[in-house]
Amino acid sequence: MQFNAYAAESAGAELKPIEYDPGELGREEIQIKIEACGICHSDLSVWRNEWGNAAYPCVPGHEVVGIVEQVGGGVTHLQPGQRVGVGWFSHSCMTCDACMAGDHNLCSSAQGIILGRYGGFADRVRVDAAWANVIPDALPTEGAGPLFCAGITVFNPIVQFGVKPTDRVGVVGIGGLGHLALQFLDAWGCEVTAFTSSPGKADEARRLGADHIVSSRDAGAIQELGPLLDFILVTSNASLPWDAYIGALRPHGRLHLVGAVLKPIPVAMFSLLVGQKSISASPLGSPATIRQMLDFAARHNIAANVETVPLSKATEALHRLDTEQPAQRLVLVPDF
Amino acid sequence: MQFNAYAAESAGAELKPIEYDPGELGREEIQIKIEACGICHSDLSVWRNEWGNAAYPCVPGHEVVGIVEQVGGGVTHLQPGQRVGVGWFSHSCMTCDACMAGDHNLCSSAQGIILGRYGGFADRVRVDAAWANVIPDALPTEGAGPLFCAGITVFNPIVQFGVKPTDRVGVVGIGGLGHLALQFLDAWGCEVTAFTSSPGKADEARRLGADHIVSSRDAGAIQELGPLLDFILVTSNASLPWDAYIGALRPHGRLHLVGAVLKPIPVAMFSLLVGQKSISASPLGSPATIRQMLDFAARHNIAANVETVPLSKATEALHRLDTEQPAQRLVLVPDF
Repeated sequence: MQFNAYAAESAGAELKPIEYDPGELGREEIQIKIEACGICHSDLSVWRNEWGNAAYPCVPGHEVVGIVEQVGGGVTHLQPGQRVGVGWFSHSCMTCDACMAGDHNLCSSAQGIILGRYGGFADRVRVDAAWANVIPDALPTEGAGPLFCAGITVFNPIVQFGVKPTDRVGVVGIGGLGHLALQFLDAWGCEVTAFTSSPGKADEARRLGADHIVSSRDAGAIQELGPLLDFILVTSNASLPWDAYIGALRPHGRLHLVGAVLKPIPVAMFSLLVGQKSISASPLGSPATIRQMLDFAARHNIAANVETVPLSKATEALHRLDTEQPAQRLVLVPDF
Repeated sequence: MQFNAYAAESAGAELKPIEYDPGELGREEIQIKIEACGICHSDLSVWRNEWGNAAYPCVPGHEVVGIVEQVGGGVTHLQPGQRVGVGWFSHSCMTCDACMAGDHNLCSSAQGIILGRYGGFADRVRVDAAWANVIPDALPTEGAGPLFCAGITVFNPIVQFGVKPTDRVGVVGIGGLGHLALQFLDAWGCEVTAFTSSPGKADEARRLGADHIVSSRDAGAIQELGPLLDFILVTSNASLPWDAYIGALRPHGRLHLVGAVLKPIPVAMFSLLVGQKSISASPLGSPATIRQMLDFAARHNIAANVETVPLSKATEALHRLDTEQPAQRLVLVPDF
């Protein structure tokens, strides 16, 4: 069987249809017939090889929703016909200390679905069954895809660092990740401050759960808040007035980064010291945390705001993500 | 009653005897007759006004051990004749959220004993009773003083961040703070790696509890360790190969700073992200944690290695701390 996909032959090149032979289905793998695939900023970064680790032809796409079509001989917990989602990871070793501790997303030999493999801008994709999770019926297909990358990326730190319903939390950047973070934190019971550089996103941010809106680049306005916030989740990849954000944190506060900030962040030790503050970062989340997220999202009707685009318009959609920074998620639907 | 002290009239000036009138004893204060006072690197920094917040005349000294001589009318838990120790703090408001939560060291109006007040290079000193703690009989007077600054500074993060006996821990810098950290972590049950730039300190570090010794500035040797360490405690204030230290951390690892690093630390977000790592800093510890430390120190015979020096030689001792970076703590004994 041939798989159909959209691939770039070189960094930033137009995505064109290709066919490829996926070979034998691995014992621990499943094959998914794709119904929708969100576009994440990391697709843009890999497509343009901004991190220097892309392989070509490059088939982006790692917010996949589809129907299980085949399962490998060793797969016991999934079966054909189930609707599943897949995010950044396609494989982890399952036996290292991190995997054994339930931290499969921290496995040092974990593989990304779009790095050295072909991703979800396609009609079909294969991944290790451990990294596919059944989507609750209450969640819509198009709006569920982004939960598997954008969603788990912001949900995981809320769980990992024990954010509490009594906390005051900031979300910096109201895009694909941030608009899900607002929904999760609102349902979590927190007081939520949205930081955005786009005044036009304020109303939408409030609708999604923000109690307050502050300009993300106005160091004075940020510093004036503090020390107020217990936790600040940075979903932007811009260089920001970091010291102002640290100043806005309460004692024991944490500035947590999930946007791929490429420039080193200059951290003044004294600004961490006075309130025993932390800076940290994390990649996505483990399968167990993904299941918690899906359950929580279904209970609270949390999904991505989406605009669907035919897969044949993938190149145009990537450019739009870059230039328009839309608050809703662009989601590709296969139209082979 | 006049107090006798050694004071500098300007930044870095020779310390000379002064007499001063401490006024009425405050309701919440106690008066201590000093028996010994350790010299901390922060005394050097304040004496030379390196942080820009010193006041002159400046009487350094914040690792005080002495005998309670008088107690204010509101003091109920201490009485004359008790042997107590005092560290960096002399006052906290007792009513803000941090104080009410037991985090008196994070109180935003906490006062340092040598900033705007006269410290422990003296025959007597006064502090709020909340910041004086009774020293267990098992601990020696001279070796106990440094526990109240150097000791609690390294003990507090072990408690705050839940370092476990199963952890592998690094201690960077084997001086006043580091030589106490090695003892605490060894008694805590950890595997301890000491990082030092002084090969001559290796034997002493092993004697104090280090299982391994690594050069603190050899980025290659540090990186080669990892990912191994759960927690790295940086007691040095030097600019170090930070990325190598972050690379030596296991997933969930933490690089925690307690040395006053003045130059911003350039943090590469991706090096934190891959293993969900944190960077943090903290100031000293709360009275409750100081009591835990004193109990633990008495149980395990942990105290500072000290060399006693007459208080009249304070200026010379400050210069020695700066130039010799001794592994033992210099402790001043009043000789008025």
